[in-house]
Formats: sequence, structure tokens, C-alpha cells
Amino acid sequence: MTRRFFDLCGKDDRRFSPYCWRARMALAHKGLEAEAIPVAFTDKDKIAHSGQERVPVLEDGDTVVSDSFAIAVYLEEAYPDAPSLFGGPGGQATALFVNSWVDASVHLPLIRVVIGDIFDHIQEKDRDYFRESREPRFGQTIEEMRAGSADALPGFQQALTPARLTFKRQPFLGGDAPLYPDYILFGAFQWARTISPTALLEDGDPVAEWRDRMRALHGGLATSLVGYDG
Amino acid sequence: MTRRFFDLCGKDDRRFSPYCWRARMALAHKGLEAEAIPVAFTDKDKIAHSGQERVPVLEDGDTVVSDSFAIAVYLEEAYPDAPSLFGGPGGQATALFVNSWVDASVHLPLIRVVIGDIFDHIQEKDRDYFRESREPRFGQTIEEMRAGSADALPGFQQALTPARLTFKRQPFLGGDAPLYPDYILFGAFQWARTISPTALLEDGDPVAEWRDRMRALHGGLATSLVGYDG
Repeated sequence: MTRRFFDLCGKDDRRFSPYCWRARMALAHKGLEAEAIPVAFTDKDKIAHSGQERVPVLEDGDTVVSDSFAIAVYLEEAYPDAPSLFGGPGGQATALFVNSWVDASVHLPLIRVVIGDIFDHIQEKDRDYFRESREPRFGQTIEEMRAGSADALPGFQQALTPARLTFKRQPFLGGDAPLYPDYILFGAFQWARTISPTALLEDGDPVAEWRDRMRALHGGLATSLVGYDG
Repeated sequence: MTRRFFDLCGKDDRRFSPYCWRARMALAHKGLEAEAIPVAFTDKDKIAHSGQERVPVLEDGDTVVSDSFAIAVYLEEAYPDAPSLFGGPGGQATALFVNSWVDASVHLPLIRVVIGDIFDHIQEKDRDYFRESREPRFGQTIEEMRAGSADALPGFQQALTPARLTFKRQPFLGGDAPLYPDYILFGAFQWARTISPTALLEDGDPVAEWRDRMRALHGGLATSLVGYDG
């Protein structure tokens, strides 16, 4: 059986999609091998068979699943004997809230910090698409947002307060060991790591310490691919 | 066996603590009766036997538990055959994140909306304590914060975005039925309901529709006590 997933790819083989990182880490958590097929933003034809235009897309034998959360739910159901991603039905339901929190409250302040770095590291053929899709969304040019990057950093750090409070009481969002909510949040840091040299967190921040624990998982998978800071 | 919990109480028997509401709803979820003993902010002597100064405090036979999250964990462990509050270990771990999110990201913008209303509805003997403890915390007088209440409302509504996105996909944070994360967030709305006539949410907001579902639970417990809007 062939298993592969379509993975957003920038220049120099940078795999920078936070959503694709969620899928990659979920696969590793389940102990499942999968070939990561690189795609550019504008390679929509490569995933047309999924019936939509966004990565990640997982192919597992004859099954095609898109949307990172749906992929996690699929893996949990298809591989019930592998380590659980959710720790039960309550964990799965609450993970959807964490998913919403990261998408709305973490990614938005983060993109204001790193959007210039993203633009610098995407494939040449994606640059027009990226500018034309992102600038209207934010009501600013890439250059204006790049100029505001340092000013945006405290907002990102502040947005992490609920995670910071949690890590003062337990080592992972999933408790004593990581669960899918950890991979959801960690995707944001992998997004940044692959394209930006910016130091996002202060030393000693409980979130930074958690990030280090996440980087060590699954044989150091997170830092085995092209990126900054190791 | 006697079961009772100490419950913050304002004037006209208003039970306005969001943390005590978490405990009250958790007890109801488990189908457990408990007498709610009213205490004022300054009645610290009534809960001195708990070894700390904050409500809720649960007494269950010879067991005394303080801290709303610890109470939920205690109830889950002590009454495993009653409906689960967490839906498994992953749900319990992730609930601690929801707890942190509500405390940090929901309560803070909400108190800026309702602090004047709280001040108006606490017991006379608590007013000096409340002013002296809260004003330094916020760096503003109660009157200054009251004057900024309407301006603070959009920030509160915005803070609920992750919950709003979740309720577009499932009826409760717990999935198809409420779990403890729902009670954590609902406590914020009960805090407001008991002391403030302010309409916090627009009609049609998925969060308002969820709040209505929460109000209907456990025989309408949430609206059976003194408060505004029914």
C-alpha cells in the first residue's frame, strides 16, 4: 500500500506549511511512513483529485483525505491500535477548539511577524500568487507588513499566554505526553522555523521549553528538514 | 454524607463567581446534589479550613477540595460511573488549556466590560476590598473602567473567535454534548448574567446560540438563580 501526502514547498526544499506539519507530526505519532510530495502554492493541478485546492492532502491506499484536522481524525479511526492522537472522544472534541484557537489567535499575529520571510522563501513562481492573495486579506503590502514585523512580535508572544499558563502545569497540551493539540500549535513554530531567522520567544519562556520538547520528538523530525536555528 | 460548596455571593443573593459556576455546573453534570453556602469576598474565615482564600471550595464528606479545576478532576475520579466531565484523559489534559484560555483571554476583556456592574452588585461590606484589590491590578479606577465599558465590548466579542469557529462545526466544545470545557467558558457568561444587564453578544452569534443551549441544561439551572435577562 502506498501512503503519501502533498506538502507545501518553498525554495531550497523548505516545507513551511503549518497545516502540513500538523499532518507530518500526526503521521509520525502514529508511527506511519508517508512520502511527502512537494507542491508549490500554484501547483493546484497536483491535488485536483482531492476535490479542493489546499494542502495537506493525504493519500492512504485508495483513500484521499484533505484538511489537516480531517487527516488526524482519519488516522485515529484507521489506525486505532497505534498511539492515540486524541486520548479519547473528549480529547478529539476539545482538539477542534485548539485548532480554532491556533488558526484564529496564533497564526494571525504570527504572520504579521514572518510574512516578509515567507515571501523571501517561497518558490519564484508563487510570488505573484502570494502577493495577490495576501495583500488584500491584510489590507497592507508585503513590504508594509515586513516593516511592522518587530512591532508585531509582542502581540504574538502575548497571544501564547493560554499555552504558557498550561505549560506551567503540565509538559504538553496533551498532558504528560504530546497529543494532536500539541502538533496543532507546534505547526506554527515549524512554519516560522523553516523560513524565518527571527527569535520568536525569550529564553526561559515555558512555551520555548515546550517547543524544545516537541523538536526532540520522533527522532528529531522537526529539525531534520531545512530551516533556521538548527 | 454531606456535600456542600462555598459560593461567592453578592447582594440580593447573586451568585456571580465564574469559578463557582464551573463547580456548580460540574456537580449538576455528575448528577450530584450539593448545598451552596453563600460567602462574601471578605468572609475568608468561612473557608479558612481549605488552607487558602478563594472559592469555590467543595466539601464532600471528609474531603475538602479548592480550585475549580481541581474540583472537576476530583469529581471525575470520585464518581467515575456518573457522566464523564472530560471524555477521557486527552479531554482532561486539553481542558486545562481551555481553562487557561478562559482565564487569560476571555475573563480579562470581559471584566473591562462589567467591572462597574460587579461593583454595583457585591455586598456592601466587600466594596472597599474589591476596589483596593482590583484598581491596582488594572491601573485604573472602577469609575474609569466603567466609562470604558462600551469601548471594551468589541474586544470581548473578538476574544471569543476560537469558540465561535468551533461552534460552527459542533454544538459544544465537548462535541455533541457538553463537557467540562463548556462549563469553563459558560462560567464567564454566568458571571455577566448575574450582575450585568449588558447584551454581550449579537443575535445569531454562534456563541449566543451555544449559550442558550448551555442555559437549557440540567433543568435550566443557569437561569434559575437571580440574574438579568431571564
